[in-house]
Amino acid sequence: MKFNKIAVAVLAIGLSGATLAQNIGKAEDQIRWRQSVMQTQGWSMARIKANIDGTFNKDQVIQAANTIQAIANSGSGGLFQPGTDTGKGWRETNVKPEMFSNAAKLKEVGSAYNKAANEMAKVAATGDAAAVKAQFGNLGKACKGCHDEFRKEEKK
Amino acid sequence: MKFNKIAVAVLAIGLSGATLAQNIGKAEDQIRWRQSVMQTQGWSMARIKANIDGTFNKDQVIQAANTIQAIANSGSGGLFQPGTDTGKGWRETNVKPEMFSNAAKLKEVGSAYNKAANEMAKVAATGDAAAVKAQFGNLGKACKGCHDEFRKEEKK
Repeated sequence: MKFNKIAVAVLAIGLSGATLAQNIGKAEDQIRWRQSVMQTQGWSMARIKANIDGTFNKDQVIQAANTIQAIANSGSGGLFQPGTDTGKGWRETNVKPEMFSNAAKLKEVGSAYNKAANEMAKVAATGDAAAVKAQFGNLGKACKGCHDEFRKEEKK
Repeated sequence: MKFNKIAVAVLAIGLSGATLAQNIGKAEDQIRWRQSVMQTQGWSMARIKANIDGTFNKDQVIQAANTIQAIANSGSGGLFQPGTDTGKGWRETNVKPEMFSNAAKLKEVGSAYNKAANEMAKVAATGDAAAVKAQFGNLGKACKGCHDEFRKEEKK
Protein backbone atom coordinates (compact mmCIF):
# COMPACT_ATOMS: atom_id res chain seq x y z
CA MET A 1 0.00 0.00 0.00
CA LYS A 2 1.61 3.17 -1.23
CA PHE A 3 0.61 5.43 1.66
CA ASN A 4 2.00 3.08 4.28
CA LYS A 5 5.26 2.76 2.41
CA ILE A 6 5.61 6.55 2.45
CA ALA A 7 4.63 6.76 6.09
CA VAL A 8 7.25 4.17 6.99
CA ALA A 9 9.87 5.95 4.92
CA VAL A 10 9.09 9.31 6.50
CA LEU A 11 9.24 7.72 9.92
CA ALA A 12 12.46 5.93 9.19
CA ILE A 13 14.24 9.15 8.32
CA GLY A 14 13.12 10.72 11.54
CA LEU A 15 11.10 13.42 9.83
CA SER A 16 7.87 12.32 11.37
CA GLY A 17 6.19 11.14 14.48
CA ALA A 18 3.11 12.99 13.37
CA THR A 19 2.18 9.85 11.51
CA LEU A 20 2.23 8.01 14.82
CA ALA A 21 0.11 10.43 16.77
CA GLN A 22 -2.02 13.43 15.94
CA ASN A 23 -1.97 14.90 12.47
CA ILE A 24 -3.04 18.42 13.14
CA GLY A 25 -4.30 21.23 10.98
CA LYS A 26 -6.19 21.54 7.75
CA ALA A 27 -4.31 21.27 4.45
CA GLU A 28 -3.90 25.05 4.33
CA ASP A 29 -2.41 25.05 7.85
CA GLN A 30 -0.02 22.23 7.04
CA ILE A 31 1.17 23.99 3.87
CA ARG A 32 1.62 27.34 5.69
CA TRP A 33 3.47 25.61 8.52
CA ARG A 34 5.83 23.72 6.24
CA GLN A 35 6.51 26.87 4.22
CA SER A 36 7.32 28.59 7.52
CA VAL A 37 9.56 25.75 8.65
CA MET A 38 11.49 25.92 5.37
CA GLN A 39 11.85 29.71 5.66
CA THR A 40 13.14 29.34 9.21
CA GLN A 41 15.74 26.93 7.88
CA GLY A 42 16.53 29.36 5.06
CA TRP A 43 17.02 32.21 7.54
CA SER A 44 19.33 30.02 9.63
CA MET A 45 21.36 29.00 6.59
CA ALA A 46 21.65 32.64 5.53
CA ARG A 47 22.94 33.53 9.01
CA ILE A 48 25.64 30.86 8.90
CA LYS A 49 26.66 32.02 5.44
CA ALA A 50 26.88 35.64 6.64
CA ASN A 51 29.21 34.51 9.42
CA ILE A 52 31.37 32.57 6.98
CA ASP A 53 31.55 35.48 4.53
CA GLY A 54 31.86 38.20 7.19
CA THR A 55 32.98 38.38 10.81
CA PHE A 56 32.65 34.91 12.36
CA ASN A 57 30.54 34.97 15.51
CA LYS A 58 30.58 31.54 17.12
CA ASP A 59 27.45 32.12 19.22
CA GLN A 60 25.37 33.21 16.27
CA VAL A 61 26.45 30.17 14.24
CA ILE A 62 25.51 27.90 17.16
CA GLN A 63 22.09 29.55 17.45
CA ALA A 64 21.46 29.01 13.74
CA ALA A 65 22.82 25.45 13.65
CA ASN A 66 20.79 24.42 16.71
CA THR A 67 17.65 25.78 15.07
CA ILE A 68 18.39 23.81 11.90
CA GLN A 69 19.02 20.66 13.92
CA ALA A 70 15.85 20.98 16.02
CA ILE A 71 13.70 21.50 12.93
CA ALA A 72 15.40 18.67 11.04
CA ASN A 73 14.42 16.40 13.93
CA SER A 74 11.03 18.00 14.53
CA GLY A 75 8.84 15.66 12.58
CA SER A 76 8.05 18.22 9.90
CA GLY A 77 7.64 15.33 7.47
CA GLY A 78 4.21 15.01 9.10
CA LEU A 79 3.27 18.28 7.39
CA PHE A 80 3.36 16.53 4.02
CA GLN A 81 0.19 14.53 4.36
CA PRO A 82 -1.50 12.93 1.33
CA GLY A 83 -3.81 15.47 -0.27
CA THR A 84 -1.47 18.41 0.33
CA ASP A 85 0.34 18.17 -2.99
CA THR A 86 -1.82 21.08 -4.09
CA GLY A 87 -3.20 23.96 -2.07
CA LYS A 88 -2.23 27.30 -0.62
CA GLY A 89 -0.56 28.23 2.65
CA TRP A 90 1.25 31.57 2.58
CA ARG A 91 1.30 30.87 -1.17
CA GLU A 92 0.60 27.95 -3.50
CA THR A 93 2.64 24.93 -2.52
CA ASN A 94 5.52 24.12 -4.84
CA VAL A 95 5.94 20.53 -3.73
CA LYS A 96 6.15 18.00 -6.57
CA PRO A 97 3.64 15.12 -6.53
CA GLU A 98 6.63 12.75 -6.61
CA MET A 99 7.23 13.44 -2.91
CA PHE A 100 4.08 11.48 -2.15
CA SER A 101 4.90 8.54 -4.42
CA ASN A 102 8.67 7.95 -4.33
CA ALA A 103 9.30 6.58 -0.84
CA ALA A 104 12.77 5.25 -1.61
CA LYS A 105 14.08 8.57 -2.86
CA LEU A 106 12.39 10.44 0.00
CA LYS A 107 14.13 8.22 2.49
CA GLU A 108 17.48 8.71 0.76
CA VAL A 109 17.42 12.50 0.57
CA GLY A 110 15.71 12.90 3.94
CA SER A 111 18.30 10.76 5.70
CA ALA A 112 21.12 12.75 4.11
CA TYR A 113 19.52 16.00 5.29
CA ASN A 114 19.05 14.78 8.86
CA LYS A 115 22.61 13.52 9.06
CA ALA A 116 24.03 16.76 7.68
CA ALA A 117 21.91 18.89 10.04
CA ASN A 118 23.00 16.92 13.11
CA GLU A 119 26.63 17.18 12.02
CA MET A 120 26.24 20.95 11.41
CA ALA A 121 25.23 21.45 15.06
CA LYS A 122 28.20 19.42 16.27
CA VAL A 123 30.64 21.35 14.10
CA ALA A 124 29.13 24.73 15.07
CA ALA A 125 29.74 23.92 18.74
CA THR A 126 33.48 23.66 18.08
CA GLY A 127 33.64 27.25 16.82
CA ASP A 128 36.05 26.18 14.07
CA ALA A 129 35.27 28.55 11.20
CA ALA A 130 36.93 26.42 8.52
CA ALA A 131 35.06 23.30 9.64
CA VAL A 132 31.80 25.28 9.76
CA LYS A 133 32.39 26.40 6.19
CA ALA A 134 33.00 22.83 5.02
CA GLN A 135 29.96 21.41 6.81
CA PHE A 136 27.81 24.31 5.60
CA GLY A 137 28.69 23.19 2.08
CA ASN A 138 27.67 19.62 2.87
CA LEU A 139 24.41 20.72 4.43
CA GLY A 140 23.61 22.98 1.48
CA LYS A 141 24.07 20.01 -0.85
CA ALA A 142 21.74 17.92 1.34
CA CYS A 143 19.07 20.65 1.20
CA LYS A 144 19.48 20.88 -2.56
CA GLY A 145 19.25 17.10 -2.86
CA CYS A 146 15.68 17.21 -1.60
CA HIS A 147 14.73 20.42 -3.41
CA ASP A 148 15.95 19.07 -6.75
CA GLU A 149 13.81 15.97 -6.34
CA PHE A 150 10.68 17.29 -4.72
CA ARG A 151 10.38 21.06 -5.10
CA LYS A 152 9.16 22.78 -8.22
CA GLU A 153 11.35 25.60 -9.48
CA GLU A 154 10.70 28.79 -7.51
CA LYS A 155 8.60 31.35 -9.34
CA LYS A 156 10.60 34.54 -9.73
CA MET B 1 20.29 56.53 22.91
CA LYS B 2 17.08 54.68 22.31
CA PHE B 3 18.38 52.19 19.76
CA ASN B 4 21.24 51.08 21.97
CA LYS B 5 18.92 50.59 24.91
CA ILE B 6 16.76 48.29 22.82
CA ALA B 7 19.78 46.46 21.45
CA VAL B 8 21.05 45.89 24.97
CA ALA B 9 17.63 44.72 26.14
CA VAL B 10 17.27 42.32 23.22
CA LEU B 11 20.72 40.99 23.87
CA ALA B 12 20.14 40.64 27.58
CA ILE B 13 17.13 38.42 27.06
CA GLY B 14 19.08 36.18 24.75
CA LEU B 15 16.88 36.86 21.77
CA SER B 16 19.66 38.30 19.73
CA GLY B 17 23.26 37.93 18.76
CA ALA B 18 22.34 39.30 15.38
CA THR B 19 22.98 42.72 16.88
CA LEU B 20 26.53 41.62 17.60
CA ALA B 21 27.33 40.24 14.21
CA GLN B 22 25.70 40.34 10.80
CA ASN B 23 22.20 41.68 10.41
CA ILE B 24 21.09 39.94 7.29
CA GLY B 25 18.26 40.46 4.85
CA LYS B 26 16.21 43.38 3.66
CA ALA B 27 13.23 44.54 5.73
CA GLU B 28 10.90 42.31 3.69
CA ASP B 29 13.13 39.29 4.35
CA GLN B 30 13.32 40.00 8.07
CA ILE B 31 9.54 40.36 8.30
CA ARG B 32 8.91 37.16 6.31
CA TRP B 33 11.47 35.28 8.41
CA ARG B 34 10.05 36.42 11.73
CA GLN B 35 6.51 35.58 10.58
CA SER B 36 7.83 32.13 9.65
CA VAL B 37 9.56 31.72 13.00
CA MET B 38 6.34 32.60 14.82
CA GLN B 39 4.35 30.16 12.68
CA THR B 40 6.86 27.42 13.40
CA GLN B 41 6.37 28.11 17.10
CA GLY B 42 2.60 28.10 16.58
CA TRP B 43 2.76 24.74 14.82
CA SER B 44 4.85 23.32 17.67
CA MET B 45 2.43 24.66 20.29
CA ALA B 46 -0.50 23.17 18.38
CA ARG B 47 1.26 19.80 18.34
CA ILE B 48 1.82 19.81 22.09
CA LYS B 49 -1.81 20.77 22.62
CA ALA B 50 -2.99 17.93 20.37
CA ASN B 51 -0.95 15.52 22.48
CA ILE B 52 -2.43 16.90 25.70
CA ASP B 53 -5.97 16.75 24.34
CA GLY B 54 -5.58 13.41 22.52
CA THR B 55 -3.24 10.44 22.75
CA PHE B 56 -0.02 11.52 24.46
CA ASN B 57 3.04 10.71 22.35
CA LYS B 58 6.17 11.54 24.30
CA ASP B 59 8.46 11.65 21.26
CA GLN B 60 6.23 14.07 19.40
CA VAL B 61 6.05 16.39 22.41
CA ILE B 62 9.84 16.32 22.70
CA GLN B 63 10.23 17.15 19.00
CA ALA B 64 7.89 20.12 19.37
CA ALA B 65 9.38 21.36 22.64
CA ASN B 66 12.94 21.11 21.31
CA THR B 67 11.91 23.17 18.28
CA ILE B 68 10.36 25.81 20.53
CA GLN B 69 13.46 25.90 22.70
CA ALA B 70 15.89 26.19 19.78
CA ILE B 71 13.92 29.03 18.23
CA ALA B 72 13.50 30.82 21.57
CA ASN B 73 17.30 30.78 21.83
CA SER B 74 17.95 31.43 18.14
CA GLY B 75 18.43 35.16 18.22
CA SER B 76 15.20 35.87 16.37
CA GLY B 77 15.07 39.19 18.21
CA GLY B 78 17.58 40.28 15.57
CA LEU B 79 14.76 40.09 13.02
CA PHE B 80 13.11 43.10 14.64
CA GLN B 81 15.51 45.75 13.42
CA PRO B 82 14.61 49.45 13.54
CA GLY B 83 12.69 50.36 10.40
CA THR B 84 10.77 47.08 10.27
CA ASP B 85 7.78 48.27 12.27
CA THR B 86 5.99 48.59 8.94
CA GLY B 87 6.38 46.51 5.80
CA LYS B 88 5.33 43.25 4.25
CA GLY B 89 6.79 39.77 4.51
CA TRP B 90 4.29 36.99 3.81
CA ARG B 91 1.80 39.69 4.79
CA GLU B 92 1.86 43.14 6.42
CA THR B 93 3.65 43.03 9.74
CA ASN B 94 1.41 43.31 12.78
CA VAL B 95 4.13 44.34 15.19
CA LYS B 96 3.30 47.37 17.34
CA PRO B 97 5.73 50.30 17.21
CA GLU B 98 6.04 49.98 21.01
CA MET B 99 8.31 46.96 20.50
CA PHE B 100 10.97 49.32 19.21
CA SER B 101 10.61 51.87 22.00
CA ASN B 102 9.81 50.04 25.26
CA ALA B 103 13.05 48.27 26.11
CA ALA B 104 12.11 47.52 29.71
CA LYS B 105 8.87 45.76 28.80
CA LEU B 106 10.57 43.89 25.94
CA LYS B 107 13.18 42.57 28.34
CA GLU B 108 10.51 41.54 30.83
CA VAL B 109 8.27 39.62 28.43
CA GLY B 110 11.18 38.24 26.40
CA SER B 111 12.89 36.86 29.50
CA ALA B 112 9.68 35.19 30.62
CA TYR B 113 9.28 33.57 27.20
CA ASN B 114 12.85 32.26 27.12
CA LYS B 115 12.57 30.83 30.60
CA ALA B 116 9.25 29.14 29.85
CA ALA B 117 10.55 27.68 26.57
CA ASN B 118 13.67 26.22 28.22
CA GLU B 119 11.52 24.74 30.98
CA MET B 120 9.09 23.29 28.40
CA ALA B 121 11.93 21.29 26.80
CA LYS B 122 13.04 19.99 30.21
CA VAL B 123 9.53 18.93 31.16
CA ALA B 124 8.87 17.32 27.76
CA ALA B 125 11.93 15.12 28.22
CA THR B 126 10.39 13.59 31.35
CA GLY B 127 7.37 12.33 29.40
CA ASP B 128 5.10 13.31 32.29
CA ALA B 129 1.81 14.26 30.60
CA ALA B 130 0.42 16.18 33.58
CA ALA B 131 3.61 18.22 33.95
CA VAL B 132 3.64 18.88 30.20
CA LYS B 133 0.09 20.18 30.43
CA ALA B 134 1.00 22.51 33.30
CA GLN B 135 4.12 23.86 31.61
CA PHE B 136 2.27 24.23 28.31
CA GLY B 137 -0.09 26.57 30.17
CA ASN B 138 2.82 28.58 31.52
CA LEU B 139 4.44 28.81 28.11
CA GLY B 140 1.16 29.88 26.49
CA LYS B 141 0.90 32.70 29.03
CA ALA B 142 4.46 33.77 28.25
CA CYS B 143 3.69 33.85 24.52
CA LYS B 144 0.54 35.86 25.19
CA GLY B 145 2.49 38.23 27.43
CA CYS B 146 4.53 39.37 24.45
CA HIS B 147 1.65 39.29 21.96
CA ASP B 148 -0.53 41.44 24.21
CA GLU B 149 2.18 44.05 24.44
CA PHE B 150 3.67 44.07 21.00
CA ARG B 151 1.36 42.42 18.46
CA LYS B 152 -1.61 44.14 16.88
CA GLU B 153 -4.83 42.18 16.95
CA GLU B 154 -4.89 39.59 14.17
CA LYS B 155 -7.01 40.53 11.19
CA LYS B 156 -9.71 37.91 10.71
